[in-house]
Amino acid sequence: MQTYNIAIVGATGAVGAKILDKLIERKFPFRSVKLLASSRSAGTVIQAGGRLFTIEEAKPESFTGVDYAFFSAGGSISEELAPEAVRRGAVVIDNTSAFRMDAEVPLVVPEVNPEALNGHKGLIANPNCSTIQMVVALKPIKEVFGIKKIIVSTYQAVSGAGADAILELKSQSGQFDSRSTNQASQLPSASAERHYPIAFNAIPQIDVFDDMGYTKEEWKMMNETKKIFNDKSIAVSATCVRLPVVTGHSESVYVEIDKDGISAEQFSRAISSSPGIVIQDDPATQTYPMPLFAENRDEVFVGRIRKDPDHPRGFHLWIVADNLLKGAALNSVQIAEELIKNHEEH
Amino acid sequence: MQTYNIAIVGATGAVGAKILDKLIERKFPFRSVKLLASSRSAGTVIQAGGRLFTIEEAKPESFTGVDYAFFSAGGSISEELAPEAVRRGAVVIDNTSAFRMDAEVPLVVPEVNPEALNGHKGLIANPNCSTIQMVVALKPIKEVFGIKKIIVSTYQAVSGAGADAILELKSQSGQFDSRSTNQASQLPSASAERHYPIAFNAIPQIDVFDDMGYTKEEWKMMNETKKIFNDKSIAVSATCVRLPVVTGHSESVYVEIDKDGISAEQFSRAISSSPGIVIQDDPATQTYPMPLFAENRDEVFVGRIRKDPDHPRGFHLWIVADNLLKGAALNSVQIAEELIKNHEEH
Repeated sequence: MQTYNIAIVGATGAVGAKILDKLIERKFPFRSVKLLASSRSAGTVIQAGGRLFTIEEAKPESFTGVDYAFFSAGGSISEELAPEAVRRGAVVIDNTSAFRMDAEVPLVVPEVNPEALNGHKGLIANPNCSTIQMVVALKPIKEVFGIKKIIVSTYQAVSGAGADAILELKSQSGQFDSRSTNQASQLPSASAERHYPIAFNAIPQIDVFDDMGYTKEEWKMMNETKKIFNDKSIAVSATCVRLPVVTGHSESVYVEIDKDGISAEQFSRAISSSPGIVIQDDPATQTYPMPLFAENRDEVFVGRIRKDPDHPRGFHLWIVADNLLKGAALNSVQIAEELIKNHEEH
Repeated sequence: MQTYNIAIVGATGAVGAKILDKLIERKFPFRSVKLLASSRSAGTVIQAGGRLFTIEEAKPESFTGVDYAFFSAGGSISEELAPEAVRRGAVVIDNTSAFRMDAEVPLVVPEVNPEALNGHKGLIANPNCSTIQMVVALKPIKEVFGIKKIIVSTYQAVSGAGADAILELKSQSGQFDSRSTNQASQLPSASAERHYPIAFNAIPQIDVFDDMGYTKEEWKMMNETKKIFNDKSIAVSATCVRLPVVTGHSESVYVEIDKDGISAEQFSRAISSSPGIVIQDDPATQTYPMPLFAENRDEVFVGRIRKDPDHPRGFHLWIVADNLLKGAALNSVQIAEELIKNHEEH
């Protein structure tokens, strides 16, 4: 069996660490794994799968001999080093938003659009976490019934804003009585001008605003969904909200399909036929997805499937997934698995 | 000036206490206030506005001589005692869902449909908290542009589930590391078969499910909105979700209006012209409503107003209000104020 040399850029971050975990857990056929980060972290030793890995500083030369390089260290690092990695022959799987909307760069969810990998030019983008779980759930709906319109409101976890945001949620959560005056420095993002407590709150801002009043996170969901589905005619609009949840993004989704006379049961059956999805949808036993129980799970959980009472082609559903796994690390590793499968088949 | 005898049924509950506060704060012209509750609470002394009030047991005879009786002690108490109060000449303002969809009973938000009070038969219903804040914000939109469709996803606070739910959120919030195994007995509701932790979670169930897969809370929003707007042609669909927020419901709302060529600015201006609303909508300064800062505020806060990128008549907005005040106690007192205003004008 062929084996591969791997690099992980941003190995000290939450997603980088989970990429390493998933490579080991899924027995990805790697010959070596090079963990890369900033010079500040160089020398740090990390333990994973019973082995020790030493962090090295990420430099252009780091990628010599690397077959697959996972990038998860922020957009500017990807912009700087991903082309260097590609130039040295590595295939880059980039978890940042740097190249996602580049027409030359495939934006891939392996269950949804693996064909987009064909003819890639060495750089493949991993979509935004909120986008991934939605398109996994809606792909079979698009296939079977067609989709005209998507309206999504998100309920997003703080782990998407980094490890310090998790610590801030933990600390504020213990200060119930002072909740409206708790100190805040991490949300909506560490780099924002103003910060708000996230414990006992809901913050309707993720990333920065544009002139139209949408946030970048909302545009990511709207634009990436169209690109992944390769269909600009689908109307997509998003409202993205941060919650006091540690890990696990939830989404309340309205979908208008392109076919009459479809029941909620048919809609649900179409979704359940798809890989990577677990239907949790039994109102009689109060069974529905919840973010607290999606943490550390690979699957996309779907429930609350029901027909719109006032629109014959409208449906509602509730989609939950671990934003660090299917939303990031797992999807990246699955892209690499798809690439080596294609490679071996050729 | 005429003065009135008041009764509050459910005076020991969160909403009952706030009704008393609002009556005092707003200088409602009461001659007497009788606080009623179950026999268990009879004799309890409550302090409000520098005065002491003693709880009495609620019985049919309690309402003799009462002009306005506020009910907020659960649907079954209202079903039993509200007709007794009306029979004794009191006008009942009922905060439960017992009579809301009764064709004979006006369902009133004073800023929205005060005319519905005309010709009432002694019983007036206060709408569901989530409905009230939405119709206050959308009423001017309906007036000026017309509304074809509403899709709402809610982000609801635990105080809507009672004082014990607040205590449970507080206790679980201190137990961060055991979050997925924290004990739960209050949510989605105390009477539910299964309970889930609310801290660090989002529970997509408020009230019980029907055969179509909707919860009662969702049907309340859908049916009550049509009744208050007196327009069955508006398409309304709701997804209701409970969050780890103490007080303050938030709503992500999509609206399709009935007019072309309207800008987000025109949409926003129409809303701001209405009473009881504060626009908090300046992305440049990260200004938008948040539930943590709506607690104990009377107004309905509206922000994140923007045009749908793919639908020329579609708009999105984010609506936040204190679910115990405008969503319940304040609206009930405003109904009584409207009634005495009409009474004096006649």
